[in-house]
Amino acid sequence: MINIKEDERLSKLNHSCAHLLAQAVKHKYPHAKFWVGPVIEEGFYYDIDLGDDVIKEEDLEMLEKEMKKISKDGKRIVRHEISKKEALEMFKDDPYKLDLIERMDDKETIISCYTQGDFTDLCRGPHVDTVKELKYFKLLKVSGAYWKGDSNNKVLQRIYGICFDTEQDLENHLKYLEEVKERDHRKLGKDLEIFMMSDLVGKGLPMWLPKGATLRRTLDRYITDKEISLGYKHVCTPSVGSVDLYKTSGHWEHYKDDMFPSMKLDDEEYVLRPMNCPHHMMMFKNSLHSYRDLPIRIAEIANDFRFEASGAVCGIERTRAFTQNDSHIFCRPDQIKEEFKNVIDLILDVYKDFGFENYSFRLSLRDKNNTEKYFGNDLLWEKSENELREVLDEVGVDYYEAEGEAAFYGPKLDVQVKSAIGHDVTLSTIQLDYQLPERFELTYIDEHGDKVRPVVIHRAILGSLDRFTAFLIEETKGVFKTWLAPVQINIIPVNNEYHLKYSKELEKYLSSFGFRVELDSREEKLSYRMRESQTKKIPFTLIIGDNERDNDTISYRKFGSRDTTTVSKKEFVDMIKDLIETKK
Amino acid sequence: MINIKEDERLSKLNHSCAHLLAQAVKHKYPHAKFWVGPVIEEGFYYDIDLGDDVIKEEDLEMLEKEMKKISKDGKRIVRHEISKKEALEMFKDDPYKLDLIERMDDKETIISCYTQGDFTDLCRGPHVDTVKELKYFKLLKVSGAYWKGDSNNKVLQRIYGICFDTEQDLENHLKYLEEVKERDHRKLGKDLEIFMMSDLVGKGLPMWLPKGATLRRTLDRYITDKEISLGYKHVCTPSVGSVDLYKTSGHWEHYKDDMFPSMKLDDEEYVLRPMNCPHHMMMFKNSLHSYRDLPIRIAEIANDFRFEASGAVCGIERTRAFTQNDSHIFCRPDQIKEEFKNVIDLILDVYKDFGFENYSFRLSLRDKNNTEKYFGNDLLWEKSENELREVLDEVGVDYYEAEGEAAFYGPKLDVQVKSAIGHDVTLSTIQLDYQLPERFELTYIDEHGDKVRPVVIHRAILGSLDRFTAFLIEETKGVFKTWLAPVQINIIPVNNEYHLKYSKELEKYLSSFGFRVELDSREEKLSYRMRESQTKKIPFTLIIGDNERDNDTISYRKFGSRDTTTVSKKEFVDMIKDLIETKK
Repeated sequence: MINIKEDERLSKLNHSCAHLLAQAVKHKYPHAKFWVGPVIEEGFYYDIDLGDDVIKEEDLEMLEKEMKKISKDGKRIVRHEISKKEALEMFKDDPYKLDLIERMDDKETIISCYTQGDFTDLCRGPHVDTVKELKYFKLLKVSGAYWKGDSNNKVLQRIYGICFDTEQDLENHLKYLEEVKERDHRKLGKDLEIFMMSDLVGKGLPMWLPKGATLRRTLDRYITDKEISLGYKHVCTPSVGSVDLYKTSGHWEHYKDDMFPSMKLDDEEYVLRPMNCPHHMMMFKNSLHSYRDLPIRIAEIANDFRFEASGAVCGIERTRAFTQNDSHIFCRPDQIKEEFKNVIDLILDVYKDFGFENYSFRLSLRDKNNTEKYFGNDLLWEKSENELREVLDEVGVDYYEAEGEAAFYGPKLDVQVKSAIGHDVTLSTIQLDYQLPERFELTYIDEHGDKVRPVVIHRAILGSLDRFTAFLIEETKGVFKTWLAPVQINIIPVNNEYHLKYSKELEKYLSSFGFRVELDSREEKLSYRMRESQTKKIPFTLIIGDNERDNDTISYRKFGSRDTTTVSKKEFVDMIKDLIETKK
Repeated sequence: MINIKEDERLSKLNHSCAHLLAQAVKHKYPHAKFWVGPVIEEGFYYDIDLGDDVIKEEDLEMLEKEMKKISKDGKRIVRHEISKKEALEMFKDDPYKLDLIERMDDKETIISCYTQGDFTDLCRGPHVDTVKELKYFKLLKVSGAYWKGDSNNKVLQRIYGICFDTEQDLENHLKYLEEVKERDHRKLGKDLEIFMMSDLVGKGLPMWLPKGATLRRTLDRYITDKEISLGYKHVCTPSVGSVDLYKTSGHWEHYKDDMFPSMKLDDEEYVLRPMNCPHHMMMFKNSLHSYRDLPIRIAEIANDFRFEASGAVCGIERTRAFTQNDSHIFCRPDQIKEEFKNVIDLILDVYKDFGFENYSFRLSLRDKNNTEKYFGNDLLWEKSENELREVLDEVGVDYYEAEGEAAFYGPKLDVQVKSAIGHDVTLSTIQLDYQLPERFELTYIDEHGDKVRPVVIHRAILGSLDRFTAFLIEETKGVFKTWLAPVQINIIPVNNEYHLKYSKELEKYLSSFGFRVELDSREEKLSYRMRESQTKKIPFTLIIGDNERDNDTISYRKFGSRDTTTVSKKEFVDMIKDLIETKK
């Protein structure tokens, strides 16, 4: 993904293209008044007041044509400098430009303007030399935007665009944008019936439809069973806790703004939990522990709640209610390295199962100057940061460091995974914590019979199941591997009169192995039903006709293929079993 | 379970025994002053002010001896009637009795007293004729109780007891009480490490320890998989919703007092959900439905929250956060009967898996006079109540009717299951609902192309997993069948030096089949470890010595048995597999 703002040449090109757009708009809508036209990461935009006129998506082509015409005309882009007084005079009929000029520092006696042909705009520049350079651009969308971003102000029309130096670059970028759109988890989530939103239920509170819930259940059981086999102890704790619990943990002081408001009941006060650490600390504290019992790995598929601003929530990627694949490992100092290594191994093992190959490790440290967020003992912070470095060096993992990315209670190792469209997401995390054991006064009895503090390693592998699924959808375009697919097999009888009975038998037979099977016996054309099976991205489509019925066989097409293969029922079952087992 | 209050003879006997207790206390503590000594369901108690003296559990025997002495003495119990004035004079030194007399109606000119030997008490009676009849009693416990139940008042000492006519009756009852204590799910839940409580986490918010969570996960997967195989569509929805959602459903108006308080965020207001119906209604409403698509059975293992008074919560039986095995079936009117029958079949099927045999069906109807709780259309109520009766008659289920037990939105069929100690619990429920489809304006397209309302059947099979587990613990005394047991197999090497290697191999081998295995290689005596395996109620204890290692075999003891059986590894695996599969 290109960041236009960070590329000097592209930045100049796009800024100039914003002027070109404004000039074209002025030609078509002479009464148009212009606010600002900045370069952004994704290209440029211009905010325009068109009075009662409205520019729609379908008008963009007409504007592009006008832009091309101006570009062909090839006027030079000329900078000239004027005094503030001259500027006020020049733009006296334009309240937006006047507003800009008025707000300029009085010391700025010289104001620059850029003129190209019949169009002049107030601008600091720099710009390209001639509009001829602005050949490979595209207007992307139009939307409303409050003047100065204030909802009390008038709505201006914001037109977005992008410009490149070569046709190839533009084409590649448009293809990329198309890909981004096609992989948007909100669109695919709707098309594939993964989840739905409802304003009445609430913002940032997605509801998982049956197909999505199947995917989620598969993830849940997969990671739970894997963790149990590795010695994790799964528990189940409530998603509320007393405010005192979060005062003890420090969340109330350092994380309150991200939490839902508390609920007061008589003389009690509760709050929805944003994290599971305090519950797990209390569980460790519930019984005595000897040094021989450690490490104790408490794990949970746990529901959490955070108050995200209603504008910040996004599908199932960023929500107010989510479910974490969480664990807290309570261990002795001499076990940190081993446990860290185990968690890294687990992460790599899981990524292999999902086929993730594009990831990197980020060592997230505190920002030493932000003592409000990163509270507690300086020595402990340094100790744990250094220890983490040592562990990583010993384990031999490549990593980079990032200041100010630590959790409020300790440094962490984040695993950043890049999706097919370059979206960088923190999926897994491992965190070293000396603070919470201190705050909760956790102890175990060491080999000398003394009470000492355990160390806590917080870790998440899939992270939140919600965000993980959003990532998975984006990464796979909704084409899930067989073991994950909500529907694994779709049975289509060629003709209901002759082939329905055998199809139903097959449905029952295949379901008995725990496969997720659907039977499409609607009175629709075969080709229609086969096409729909592809749209739904079902891994195996079975076409059942005379041959299959008479020979007790199965003919299938794999998703994306036009080849039909005929096999015995047993062969088919063995193949599916193998695919599920090997996570293929 | 006997209700003493409801038996006239036992009621008289126990009331008289309360006087006997008071007389004995007076003998031992001459300064004792007496408040009231009523009959209760469980027997009787007396509230006594002993000044600075304290009666402890260990003093009860001494009091029982004194009671026996008085009883042997055989004084008659004589009623005499006096005027209020005389009564005030007689009890002038007893502030408690004066308080009672003062509060008596002035029209009650005659006040009755009962005298037995040297003891007289103010009392309406009736009593038995002579203290001789009070032979088979037992003092059960002593606790503090505020005078008049007001926490601003002095704490009196409350002594509980029970009395029967025969030694056998008393013995049976004491045995029963012992059984109740032994089956108390809070005690067993702690001993078997099923769950824990923490005041800092909050009241009524149990946390499931690893063993409990394993049991719970087994229940969850069992019922989820069974439901899916029957055509239920499992979904996943958040445990909060907007207040408007609950205004739409009617919960806000009719159920608010049982809910947690709402949480206000800027211009939004959310609340923890007490039930899942509104979320599932919105999910049905999310897409168009044809009459051919029905029934649609939306199901969820769903987290809910209700605000129970802190005094009402009890272990995992009655909690503020719980998880329901819930479903809403959206169907056509002509499908009600079939769906009802299917649900009843499922209930009976599940009860068979758990071995429940002592249950009855209760048709819970509205209380017609309580229009505040039972709102809505009278005709709809009558229609659905009658329909339910018809369905039950047709399905041929025995049931009894109970007024005022309906849900606020409709009548229901509750399944009341009796535990081994006679505890009557509503586990499953099926409810017919015409109100919510109306309030949420749900529709489907019928065969004529018209939009019509579906009917909703609410149903729960295991009910809340929490209460179900509490019931299961009470019912089984914590001796879970193999398929449910948190630990199924406990491997004990006779000697770590010689048998640990083979034991570890066995652990790995057995775990590979998904069995839940533990290895107890602590340096403790064999007999100690075997005894502990029984205390933990683990179904299979493997004792691994020379023979097993040399012959590659397994020697096991079943829980509760002293016989050791030796089999091949394969035989053992097949046996466990079969036990799990057949839910034995």
